[in-house]
Amino acid sequence: MILLYTGNGKGKTTSAVGTAIRARGRGKRVVFIQFMKARDSGEIKPLKELGVEVYRFGRKELVNLKNPSEEDKTLAKNALDLARKKLKENPFLIILDEVNVAVTAGLVDIKDVISLVKKAGDTHILLTGRYAPKELIELADLVTEMKEIKHPFQKGLLAVEGIDY
Amino acid sequence: MILLYTGNGKGKTTSAVGTAIRARGRGKRVVFIQFMKARDSGEIKPLKELGVEVYRFGRKELVNLKNPSEEDKTLAKNALDLARKKLKENPFLIILDEVNVAVTAGLVDIKDVISLVKKAGDTHILLTGRYAPKELIELADLVTEMKEIKHPFQKGLLAVEGIDY
Repeated sequence: MILLYTGNGKGKTTSAVGTAIRARGRGKRVVFIQFMKARDSGEIKPLKELGVEVYRFGRKELVNLKNPSEEDKTLAKNALDLARKKLKENPFLIILDEVNVAVTAGLVDIKDVISLVKKAGDTHILLTGRYAPKELIELADLVTEMKEIKHPFQKGLLAVEGIDY
Repeated sequence: MILLYTGNGKGKTTSAVGTAIRARGRGKRVVFIQFMKARDSGEIKPLKELGVEVYRFGRKELVNLKNPSEEDKTLAKNALDLARKKLKENPFLIILDEVNVAVTAGLVDIKDVISLVKKAGDTHILLTGRYAPKELIELADLVTEMKEIKHPFQKGLLAVEGIDY
């Protein structure tokens, strides 16, 4: 099954973490690959403790989506290369966190992502990130749009450790 | 902070699980209370292993939302009673999974939920479930609508162990 979470609201990566946990609770092998992320976040340690294989490809700084650097592109390509390699081992679930954004920002070629997804076989693949291209939405079996109705950052509140990261 | 996940798409409870994990990764105390749920689901064991305090109030069978039984109402009231008790201990996060549905189905009184949420103080409260009443949406600081764009059950595919439960 190909799952895709997109939209501008909170809950995409958080739900990917929950999906990883649910699969681990069934004793399944889970590979969690994050694009464009390297900054510390609360979920990483417990995911690893539970045996989720976590790989993070990013810099500490945010990617400039309108003008990504060569380093950003290389990191994203490395993430996709690893996904291809892991897929050959047929894990139960591969999560490609923020891959939708990586595609839309031009860090990786959408054809390469489509080609990977089409080879999924028995492996479930979960794609997350805003701005999901319609080709990926068409390819997915399950698509949820996480739509922001209200967000405390609108009111100027800061991110909370343990909730937002 | 009061967070609320609603909508007809997949990702509400899953994201609540991810939020619990993120908070635990920061060493915070998390109370996870599920309304109307008792059936086995993959995430329960790893949540407990990570020290999340999980309490489930439900029967194995699904609740008839149009005509809930007295037992369903008693279970939901017990869930809310426990939430009130736990709130007095000021945990970092209390998750009331499916409480929105419990309110809309008339299992618990919305006034009791509002009264609880207003006493949150420093405790973060996350409310999940479809059909969130507008009073709870107004009360929340963060609201995401998980909107179903595509779902494999539409195609007649069955739920997958490790992904859906």
